[in-house]
Amino acid sequence: MSTFKAYGVLNATSSLAPLQITRREPQPHDVAIKIAYCGVCHSDIHQARNEWGNSVYPMVPGHEIVGTVTSVGAKVRRFKVGDKVGVGCLVDSCRQCPDCKEGLEQFCSRPIFTYNCLELDNKTPVQGGYSSGIVVHEDFVLRIPDYLPLDKTAPLLCAGITTYSPLRHWNAGPGKKVAIIGLGGLGHMAVKIARAMKAEVTVLSRTLDKKDDAIKLGAHHVYATNDPKTFEHLAKNFDLIINTVSVKLDWGAYLGLLQRDGTMVLLGVPTDAPQLHAFSLIMGRRSLAGSLIGGIKETQEMLDFCGKHNITADIEIIPMVKINEAYERVIKADVKYRFVIDMASL
Amino acid sequence: MSTFKAYGVLNATSSLAPLQITRREPQPHDVAIKIAYCGVCHSDIHQARNEWGNSVYPMVPGHEIVGTVTSVGAKVRRFKVGDKVGVGCLVDSCRQCPDCKEGLEQFCSRPIFTYNCLELDNKTPVQGGYSSGIVVHEDFVLRIPDYLPLDKTAPLLCAGITTYSPLRHWNAGPGKKVAIIGLGGLGHMAVKIARAMKAEVTVLSRTLDKKDDAIKLGAHHVYATNDPKTFEHLAKNFDLIINTVSVKLDWGAYLGLLQRDGTMVLLGVPTDAPQLHAFSLIMGRRSLAGSLIGGIKETQEMLDFCGKHNITADIEIIPMVKINEAYERVIKADVKYRFVIDMASL
Repeated sequence: MSTFKAYGVLNATSSLAPLQITRREPQPHDVAIKIAYCGVCHSDIHQARNEWGNSVYPMVPGHEIVGTVTSVGAKVRRFKVGDKVGVGCLVDSCRQCPDCKEGLEQFCSRPIFTYNCLELDNKTPVQGGYSSGIVVHEDFVLRIPDYLPLDKTAPLLCAGITTYSPLRHWNAGPGKKVAIIGLGGLGHMAVKIARAMKAEVTVLSRTLDKKDDAIKLGAHHVYATNDPKTFEHLAKNFDLIINTVSVKLDWGAYLGLLQRDGTMVLLGVPTDAPQLHAFSLIMGRRSLAGSLIGGIKETQEMLDFCGKHNITADIEIIPMVKINEAYERVIKADVKYRFVIDMASL
Repeated sequence: MSTFKAYGVLNATSSLAPLQITRREPQPHDVAIKIAYCGVCHSDIHQARNEWGNSVYPMVPGHEIVGTVTSVGAKVRRFKVGDKVGVGCLVDSCRQCPDCKEGLEQFCSRPIFTYNCLELDNKTPVQGGYSSGIVVHEDFVLRIPDYLPLDKTAPLLCAGITTYSPLRHWNAGPGKKVAIIGLGGLGHMAVKIARAMKAEVTVLSRTLDKKDDAIKLGAHHVYATNDPKTFEHLAKNFDLIINTVSVKLDWGAYLGLLQRDGTMVLLGVPTDAPQLHAFSLIMGRRSLAGSLIGGIKETQEMLDFCGKHNITADIEIIPMVKINEAYERVIKADVKYRFVIDMASL
């Protein structure tokens, strides 16, 4: 066992504070990583505070991890000391089920999430990226394109893949009209990626306050959803809507913005389940679907795509000691557009 | 104008009673049809009683129409006197929009439904199939395969196409596991058609009361949805679920029966909109979709498919005077599985 410095919570109501954690000694297929940066995802907060009801403590959050390889196990061939690498929301899975075999480990019935989860032994807790280092099986380590800056790349490991995967799966591309609901951590990545995929990109934001930002990020159009005329003007307009927000919306109203055979994809989970009238789907043969992060193969594809198109996140770098303040600001959506912790400050 | 005998309603609370109606003189592209049989669809009742809030009176319901051509306009080339033909839910559409051009007239923004609708002149009401005859543009007349009996074929014009279309669109076929929720007019057709498409067919019915029937109709498996174990046993089982019922169900529970990337298609509209938790869709990248009857081209394809596979509806033939009683029995789901009016009784 090796010890690592970290920041974590001891229970659902405690602030994040320094912790010392242990991780396994690197096994033959493991990669040991010195963490340089870790992004702050809203789901870190949900889990630190047990808002999904499944939290186990002590917990070190963080699943937007980037850093440098410091050692590799004897059988590791794909990575070497000094490589720039990333770790996202998954650090292992059963590897046996059809989902794993198709490279969709996020749908495995026994995924090992990066924190708030147990290893396959069902005993050893895994801990996340608010930490000086991490040890991960090479199959779950991602290669960061050399020319991308590590700090701005960290959020790609969750916000990037969570938006890339549905855009790819539902064929965003030339000639396709794509709307992005919400311009936060996920939304701003969705705009950049959809634009790079050559779709026509519309941002649907509550007000026009972020209009200039949205255009700079790559949106072709921006509409305010607090204006009822938006829903008339854009009726039957989009092939695909990516809903990045977790607040309760009138899904039926948004489904009305889809063309025939269009799909709205949910990435967030409103705690209060919205009502849905079947008519919204029957008229125009529309679909409402969901998407969950992405598999390892697709995460590497996303990183390579972002490397090719020079796409990274817009971030605000913070030292570790500012994490509790950052959590409060994330809750107020007061960040453009992702906090990233500089682990040198730990 | 020609006059026809019919049965219809004068307002939302009147019983169906004899009416005399007029229809246009056959135009060069029109086909005049002597109606032999007309099926009784639950939507006839919804509209007769203004349960969708858009009813116009007097109204002659009926959109599962079969009969024989009695005369054709000068420019009609596709039909001749004596042909066995059908008319479904649509008698015209704008013909200009992308949906019409793709043969998906049901999604046209100006469809002319067979009754409770105005012709393209926005003045002349159209009347349905509880009538001795009908006059329809040849483009909206379907050819009935010669070897299918007319009476049992009538329900294909709505119940048949409404289930065939989503089964085809979502690729029911060999190797696919398809569940049908509900074994009524739509459900019993869905079972027959899905079986003929060579899918593995499961009926999900509230109880096992209809188990023997379901097996005879072609189902491989039948499960009771009032047994919670059904939802455990069939978790992640189906590629496609066709929900034929209009009552409010816990959609989330049924979505849990889908494999990854599976789709549940809604054909009915519960008046009380169900709540839906996004998690049901996000886990397994599932979709909830809707489907509405079918276009004319696909309706002909369905009839030809049913001809090839000798598929017709299970029906109970009634004389016209029994229609009010039949409505009450439809509401109680007391019919196996579709009432068909013998128009010789009119």
